[in-house]
Amino acid sequence: MPLLANGVKKPIVIGADVGGTKIAAALVDSQGQLMGYQTRRTDVSSSEATLDYIAEIINQVISKGGVPRKEIRGVGLGIPGLVDPERGIGLASVNLQWKNVGVTKELEKRVGIPCVIENDVKAAALGEVRFGVGQGVSNLVYVNIGTGVAAAIVIDRKIFRGQNGMAGEIGHAVIDINGPDCKCGGHGCLEAIVSGPAIVARAKSKIELDRSSQLSKLLNDKIELTSQDIYNAAHNGDIVALETVHEVSRFLAIAIQFLSLAYDPQMIVLGGGVVHSSDDFLKYLLGSINQLADASWVFRQLLTPDFVQVTKLGSNIGILGAAALVS
Amino acid sequence: MPLLANGVKKPIVIGADVGGTKIAAALVDSQGQLMGYQTRRTDVSSSEATLDYIAEIINQVISKGGVPRKEIRGVGLGIPGLVDPERGIGLASVNLQWKNVGVTKELEKRVGIPCVIENDVKAAALGEVRFGVGQGVSNLVYVNIGTGVAAAIVIDRKIFRGQNGMAGEIGHAVIDINGPDCKCGGHGCLEAIVSGPAIVARAKSKIELDRSSQLSKLLNDKIELTSQDIYNAAHNGDIVALETVHEVSRFLAIAIQFLSLAYDPQMIVLGGGVVHSSDDFLKYLLGSINQLADASWVFRQLLTPDFVQVTKLGSNIGILGAAALVS
Repeated sequence: MPLLANGVKKPIVIGADVGGTKIAAALVDSQGQLMGYQTRRTDVSSSEATLDYIAEIINQVISKGGVPRKEIRGVGLGIPGLVDPERGIGLASVNLQWKNVGVTKELEKRVGIPCVIENDVKAAALGEVRFGVGQGVSNLVYVNIGTGVAAAIVIDRKIFRGQNGMAGEIGHAVIDINGPDCKCGGHGCLEAIVSGPAIVARAKSKIELDRSSQLSKLLNDKIELTSQDIYNAAHNGDIVALETVHEVSRFLAIAIQFLSLAYDPQMIVLGGGVVHSSDDFLKYLLGSINQLADASWVFRQLLTPDFVQVTKLGSNIGILGAAALVS
Repeated sequence: MPLLANGVKKPIVIGADVGGTKIAAALVDSQGQLMGYQTRRTDVSSSEATLDYIAEIINQVISKGGVPRKEIRGVGLGIPGLVDPERGIGLASVNLQWKNVGVTKELEKRVGIPCVIENDVKAAALGEVRFGVGQGVSNLVYVNIGTGVAAAIVIDRKIFRGQNGMAGEIGHAVIDINGPDCKCGGHGCLEAIVSGPAIVARAKSKIELDRSSQLSKLLNDKIELTSQDIYNAAHNGDIVALETVHEVSRFLAIAIQFLSLAYDPQMIVLGGGVVHSSDDFLKYLLGSINQLADASWVFRQLLTPDFVQVTKLGSNIGILGAAALVS
C-alpha cells in the first residue's frame, strides 16, 4: 500500500464505472490517484453475466494494482439508471438491461470486499466534491451532458436523492415549449435540445436548409456527425454550426439558471461527452449565461467568478465518483 | 392557556405576517388555532417606526388573546424579502424599505419574548408542513404566486436555504425564451408570466387585438383588471380570458415540472393571491400538468394523486407559517 509523505498508509478503494458500452475500474487512493486501471466492453447478455464480468474486472484490477485484497476498504460502483443504494439494488437500467437486480450482495460474494452502488451521475457529483473542482464545497450541482442529460445534487457534501431517487432528472424537463420531440415522449425536453444526438439533429435540420455549410460536406463523407464535429465547424466560423451552438448554449444556460435559482448552490460543475467535445464549449455557454445575468439582477447575485465550471477529472470522473462512494 | 383534551396546556406562540401593505398577527396554539387576531396597515415611514408598530400589534394580540406573556414561547415573523434568520436581520426588503435592519433584538426589547424572523414564503412552506396539507410530509416545495412569484423548499421538515438564502427564487428563472419583459430586467421570467400583474398584462395585450371580449368592457368600467377578473371571464367562456388562462397554466406547469424533477418532493403546495383568485385555478393548472405527464413517462413517475395541491390554510398561511418558526 502506498505511503503518504508522513509514512501513514493511504486508504485504498476500488471505483468501477459501469456503462452500457464499457466498464472501467481502478484502485483509487485518498488523493484520487488511480492504480491497476482496467477497461473493457460490457457484457450485457444477462444480469448474471454482467455481474460475473464486473467481478472479473475487479479481481484483475486488484492483481494488477498489487494491493492485498484485505487492505481494500470497499468497492464503489456507478451504474447508469435508477438505483437503490441502501438495498444495493439496480432498480432499472435501460443500458444494462437491468430490472431489480441485486448487485452488492452478489458482487460481495464474488470479490470478498464490501460493495456500494449508486447512479453514475450522482456518484460523479460526489467525485467532484471529493477529488475535483468541488473540493471544500458543501453544496454543488453536477450536470452530465452526453447521450443523456441529468443533474445530481450534493447538499452538505451528501447526495440529495429526493423522494424517489429522481432529484436532478432535469433531462426531461421542458425547456423550450416549441422544442423538438424527445425520446421520452415529451416535447422540448432539455435532453432533446442539449444532448449529443440533439445537437447533431439540430445542425442536420439546418443543413437541409443551407447546403453551403461545411457540415453538409462532412456528413456526405461520414456516416454520422458528432457534437464534436459541430463545435469544430463552429470554431472554423461555419454559420450553421455557430447558429446551432448558440441556440443550444442559450437553452442550456436557461436550465442552469433555473437550477441555480432552485438550489442556490456554491458551484455548478459540468461533465459528460458533450462538455468535452470542444475547448470552446464553456466559452459559448458562459456567453449565454452572462447574457441572462446581465439582463436580470436576481441571477447575477449568484454568479461568483467560478460558479459554472467544467470538471477537470476528465474521463476518470466515473471511476473517481464511484470511488468517492466508499472513500 | 387553553387545555388539551388530556388536560395538558397547549404551547402558545405568536405568528406575525409582516407585509408591505398590512401586518396580521395572532396567538397560535399547537393545533394551529388562532386567538387574539389583529390586522392593520403597515407603517413603513421608517424601519424604527415599522418595528414600533409591529411591537404594538404584538402587545395588542397578547392583551386580546388573554394569555400571560410569560406563557408565550416565542414570536415568529414572516418578512417579505431577503432575511438572515440566524442573526435576526432583515437584509433587504423592497416592500418594507428595509436594508440590514436588526429585527429580532429590537423587537425582543419591545415585547420581552424571544423573536425569530424568516422570509415570508419560506415561513409559509414550513406552515404547510406544520399545519397544512403537508402535515407528515418531509420534503415539500411551496410555490407562492401573487404579485411576486417564489418557491420555498422544505427538506427533512426544515427550510432549505441554499448558499445565499436564495434557494427557490424561481420567479426570475426564464420559462419562455420569447416571453414578456420582467421588472427584474430579464425577459420571459416565470414572474413575468404567472404573477397577478403578468396575467392581467397578457389578457390586456389580447384585448387590444380582440375588443369583443367581456374583459374589454370590464376594463372600460374599472380602473384596472385583476387576475380574478380574468379567471371569472374564463369561467364564463370568454375566449380571450380562456386563452390567457391556458397559456399561463401551461408555463406554470412547465415550472412545476422543472421543480419536481429538480427536487423530487413528496408534494408541491401552491398559495398566494393568484392561486386563490378562482376555484378553477387548480383545474386549469392540472390540465396542463397532466398534458406534460401524459407526454413524458419521467414526469409521470412523480405524479401521485395529490402531488400538486392548493394550500387549505387560506389567508392565514402567513400567520401560521410565522408561528411554525417557533412552534
